[in-house]
Amino acid sequence: MSQFLQLVPPDEARTLLLSHLSDPFSFNQAGLLINNEIIDTSFSMGRVLAEEIVAPHSLPEFPRSSVDGYAVWAGDTFGATDSMPAYLNLIGEIPMGETSSYELKSEQCVLIHTGGMMPRGADAVVMLEYTQEIKHKRVGEQSNGENHIFEERGNHGFNIEIEILRPVAVEENAIFVGEDVVAGTVVLPKGRRIRPAEIGGLIALGILSLRVAKKPRVGIISSGDEIVNPNSQIRLGQVRDINSYTLSALVTKSDGEPVFYGIVPDQMARLKEVAAKALVECDAVVITAGSSASMRDMTAEVISSLGDPGVIVHGINTKPGKPTILGYVLENQ
Amino acid sequence: MSQFLQLVPPDEARTLLLSHLSDPFSFNQAGLLINNEIIDTSFSMGRVLAEEIVAPHSLPEFPRSSVDGYAVWAGDTFGATDSMPAYLNLIGEIPMGETSSYELKSEQCVLIHTGGMMPRGADAVVMLEYTQEIKHKRVGEQSNGENHIFEERGNHGFNIEIEILRPVAVEENAIFVGEDVVAGTVVLPKGRRIRPAEIGGLIALGILSLRVAKKPRVGIISSGDEIVNPNSQIRLGQVRDINSYTLSALVTKSDGEPVFYGIVPDQMARLKEVAAKALVECDAVVITAGSSASMRDMTAEVISSLGDPGVIVHGINTKPGKPTILGYVLENQ
Repeated sequence: MSQFLQLVPPDEARTLLLSHLSDPFSFNQAGLLINNEIIDTSFSMGRVLAEEIVAPHSLPEFPRSSVDGYAVWAGDTFGATDSMPAYLNLIGEIPMGETSSYELKSEQCVLIHTGGMMPRGADAVVMLEYTQEIKHKRVGEQSNGENHIFEERGNHGFNIEIEILRPVAVEENAIFVGEDVVAGTVVLPKGRRIRPAEIGGLIALGILSLRVAKKPRVGIISSGDEIVNPNSQIRLGQVRDINSYTLSALVTKSDGEPVFYGIVPDQMARLKEVAAKALVECDAVVITAGSSASMRDMTAEVISSLGDPGVIVHGINTKPGKPTILGYVLENQ
Repeated sequence: MSQFLQLVPPDEARTLLLSHLSDPFSFNQAGLLINNEIIDTSFSMGRVLAEEIVAPHSLPEFPRSSVDGYAVWAGDTFGATDSMPAYLNLIGEIPMGETSSYELKSEQCVLIHTGGMMPRGADAVVMLEYTQEIKHKRVGEQSNGENHIFEERGNHGFNIEIEILRPVAVEENAIFVGEDVVAGTVVLPKGRRIRPAEIGGLIALGILSLRVAKKPRVGIISSGDEIVNPNSQIRLGQVRDINSYTLSALVTKSDGEPVFYGIVPDQMARLKEVAAKALVECDAVVITAGSSASMRDMTAEVISSLGDPGVIVHGINTKPGKPTILGYVLENQ
């Protein structure tokens, strides 16, 4: 039972193991990032960024209204009330998705919708609720060709005045360029796990592919003379291989890739052979072996035979789980 | 703005929506469960059980030792101490995975490993730590043919006595049939979401396939004249379709299946057409539409046009999210 003389608390065991693991985003000798790949942003959920993401442009890219209303020069509305409205001339409407070509002058306004592009010269938006429309029969035809959409709404032949019933402050009810993100800012750090919100943010910036860490491959080896494949007929004394499936599900849930190496009999040579193969093919290997004292010793010996430093934790102060063995093997051997 | 006169708190909105949804495990007229499928247990993580799981046999299926030691009749060990050990005759060893054929008599013991099958007649196990082995040169050859494995270990020609230094209580250090699960017990209820632990438990019982609810298909429709495909060149005034990708990731994360219906222009007829198609093909449809007041009204009208009862919540008391519309349409129309 000598292997249990130095039971380690779980946190300490984890810290010790992590201290042996190299930075997954380190550079190899060729100066290339290793262990990563480029994937579509839309399929990146749960993956870990292997690069820093810098905003290629600002968000929003153009000044936008955040309400339905009239784009104005705020100064024109100062002091406006229900009884003393400000009167502005409506010069047109900005359709959604269109680049605004209006240049707003004092005492003018433009009809705008939530998300619509602010016209040049406008610095605020008055909400529809605080306005009233007044039509005046136009004295002479003076269409400027700009407000054709406006005129399609049956306003041909009219001048329209908008009564502004509340003042707005400069920048009120509008979002300006870079208010969400300024071009060149680091928006996501290397190592960030991608969630749905990150996907949305990346797509908003037009970042449609990403360099992410490859999913860690975790080899799973089940060992024990009493363990049988769940598909097979079992006899008394045997038990189905449960751990391979539970471990596989846990690896998948953690966005890793489980690799099965089957059930290996309680023979040192065979277990060494399979573990060595798994270690070459995977980033980590989990051996779930027989729990008798002799099997625990054999598993520790197998781990240490794979390379240095070998076993680093032998026994964790937790129940169940006391016979847990943690080991680490340097890659270049 | 009439649609916001009755803002509903988020919890109330959810309860109202859920109250309209039928039991996903209800029976259809043919007496068959609908909306479910049979899948491999090993691939069932995150899925929802559409059947109750009843244990087909007990766990463990055979009495097992939970330590390394000697299977004994507990009565033989009562009063044993370091200075006054009990002496038991070792009659053999039970190899892992083998059906025990021993029938233990009083004053006998059998070497057993953790997880090994208890011999008949044994009702407890003494841990190795509390025993000592004494070899006696055998006087006459009296092999009973049962302990061949035992004799392979070089004990041929010896009788072995085990000194028991601590007493054990009946059932100590062993697990008996049905201690984990009794055959016929409901182990998982209908509706349970499968986690790694459930997968292990099901495999342990030899349940290798399951009837689960089909993944809900969630149709995603993006609408708005300013919205463009993230792949396309955008001009000022336009924004990339972010919501489709964020929603898709959220659906995937919730173990649903997102179905894209693309970007639909702000036209009532076109939105109705796509929404009706999505409703036939999916279990739920999410429309992420323009946020102007007129667009909100149009979306509500589209939802109500699809069938009764139509819109059930129009405006939720949350920020952002106030213009959220929830609707429900009966299936058989």
